[in-house]
Amino acid sequence: MNSSSYESLLNQLNEGKKAAIVTIINNENSENSNFPRKFLFTEEGLLTDNNDYNFPDAFYEKVQYALESGMLQFGSSEKEIYLIEPYFPEPKLIVLGGGHIAKPLVEFGSKLGFSVTVVDDRPSFANSKRFPDAKNVICESFDKCFDLINLNPSTFVVIVTRGHRHDMDCLKQVLKHNTAYTGMIGSKRRVRGVMDQLVKEGYSKEKLDKVNSPIGLDIGAVTPEEIAVSIISQVVSYRRLVNTKNGRKKIIKSNWPEFDRDVLLALSKEEKEPKAIITIISTKGSVPRKEGAKMLVYPHGKILGSIGGGCSEGSVINSARYILRNGGHQIQTIDMTGYVAEEEGMVCGGIMDVLIELF
Amino acid sequence: MNSSSYESLLNQLNEGKKAAIVTIINNENSENSNFPRKFLFTEEGLLTDNNDYNFPDAFYEKVQYALESGMLQFGSSEKEIYLIEPYFPEPKLIVLGGGHIAKPLVEFGSKLGFSVTVVDDRPSFANSKRFPDAKNVICESFDKCFDLINLNPSTFVVIVTRGHRHDMDCLKQVLKHNTAYTGMIGSKRRVRGVMDQLVKEGYSKEKLDKVNSPIGLDIGAVTPEEIAVSIISQVVSYRRLVNTKNGRKKIIKSNWPEFDRDVLLALSKEEKEPKAIITIISTKGSVPRKEGAKMLVYPHGKILGSIGGGCSEGSVINSARYILRNGGHQIQTIDMTGYVAEEEGMVCGGIMDVLIELF
Repeated sequence: MNSSSYESLLNQLNEGKKAAIVTIINNENSENSNFPRKFLFTEEGLLTDNNDYNFPDAFYEKVQYALESGMLQFGSSEKEIYLIEPYFPEPKLIVLGGGHIAKPLVEFGSKLGFSVTVVDDRPSFANSKRFPDAKNVICESFDKCFDLINLNPSTFVVIVTRGHRHDMDCLKQVLKHNTAYTGMIGSKRRVRGVMDQLVKEGYSKEKLDKVNSPIGLDIGAVTPEEIAVSIISQVVSYRRLVNTKNGRKKIIKSNWPEFDRDVLLALSKEEKEPKAIITIISTKGSVPRKEGAKMLVYPHGKILGSIGGGCSEGSVINSARYILRNGGHQIQTIDMTGYVAEEEGMVCGGIMDVLIELF
Repeated sequence: MNSSSYESLLNQLNEGKKAAIVTIINNENSENSNFPRKFLFTEEGLLTDNNDYNFPDAFYEKVQYALESGMLQFGSSEKEIYLIEPYFPEPKLIVLGGGHIAKPLVEFGSKLGFSVTVVDDRPSFANSKRFPDAKNVICESFDKCFDLINLNPSTFVVIVTRGHRHDMDCLKQVLKHNTAYTGMIGSKRRVRGVMDQLVKEGYSKEKLDKVNSPIGLDIGAVTPEEIAVSIISQVVSYRRLVNTKNGRKKIIKSNWPEFDRDVLLALSKEEKEPKAIITIISTKGSVPRKEGAKMLVYPHGKILGSIGGGCSEGSVINSARYILRNGGHQIQTIDMTGYVAEEEGMVCGGIMDVLIELF
């Protein structure tokens, strides 16, 4: 039952959509086998079918905030505990054109955590020797390449082909999709020409206004490397700075959390064997892993995922084993401030709370 | 005589200062051995002693524009030819602190053409294994390191030590110098605290206002790599975007030209042997090297520097040899549009003018 929520979650992520797993734990009767219960929320609302649980209105707002900020939300009352865990799809950078700007751009994009795809129709430009950091290098015409790439709300598209005709052709294809970011290179004059042409062809001005063109932040970039930096800075700002929908318009910083796909895959499979989920729910100071990091503990010693390795995991695993035998749940504080290792660059030295639950 | 201008130029560049070489060529009588004449201008004005040449006021403005924009200026009349060549010192990035932000920052800075120096007082952080792209890695206290680094108008200083006390100590040292950029990491709250403290200690508010702190462009950076990109973007904007002094306040883009030190060294030495200087004075379209690039041609076949290699140099060298034998000067157009090689990524395909003069 709960595993199907994780299965739906993986589907959402594969489609480039954000989603949140909501966990409700009964705090009054920890042996009530109906709990913990898991629900899946998308940006459109509750997705799980079996909606016999009554979420108060304020709760929907909390979920929305989690989906905007990428921040895990945790709360507890006498009656129940809730945990809202936002999951964001892997951010993808699509670079259309493999020329002199693409080269540093792919490198920077990959360094900044994007899964990068480059497209060019010239074999000497579209090869993985030229782009060792790219996840995919596609050698295909700018016409046909769109059958091979998946444009969705977590793709950031940069159009930097060798000519403005190719650029315009690409833009027309990209405009058919809902992307996280679209930018097209070109001088102010040339861009205006392209945009006027597209308006004439019936493209809506509103949609065209969302295209970042001329591309990149205005840092006076001159060299290809500088242009690449101005572009990737703009892309990062689109990834991180989010307009909240709630209340007054406000820009918040999105955490865009990373997730462990192996752990989600294990949770999405219906297994007879019970397991304990350990989730970091809050951190303070210098800790090896952040809120949302997960570790699964199985009865016979198997462990999947990590909440930070040696200096934090030992005692929690014992608690997880206790819960595997006796049921229930537990919130445990792990204090790593004893390890004063900052001078040597070690990352233990903070405090974190973890939730241990039976799954 | 002329060589001393180049000697002074190199001294200026070593001090981190911009300067321009002005060449005046007599166009009426090309055998007048007083010409070409070379003068050195700094941002403060004409530096050469032997000022018996009468520059009109408008000419000083042209020189100033060259020093702001980094753009070579060329003009000719029946009477004379002038060439204003701006030279900008190598831009230096000084990173104080060798932690998790310094790591990507040094890499990006080096990719963007800065000569990078990193300082940390911890041997495990200040070593060239950690910073393979750094030109200098200095392991020294933040107190003493300033004896080892040369802060001047072409140094861009980023303060990212592991603690705000070290940051403040560094800032106090940096404020003693005139730098191209100073930025210090820190949250808004913490930065305000440091600034209030410094005002109390007598530092001028005007000077402190020029410090970029919190550091970096506001792109919502979260990870160390993103913070590094936000910082280097801001550094680039300080390198490239210049407020002109002339007329209305206007931001122009500085070209910050590169130069060939070997060529300047050869020109700064008084040699008996004459040589021809070939300088690119204008370009159009795709050319291998830009305005200001220089090649020296000696009588017995020796050549120093380059104006772009094979597809452009051949015929110009012949003209240079003619001038070496017969004196005078020449402006020659090199048309490379015959080489339509853009599709294969070659860089010949434009047109450029070169000035050939005897030196």
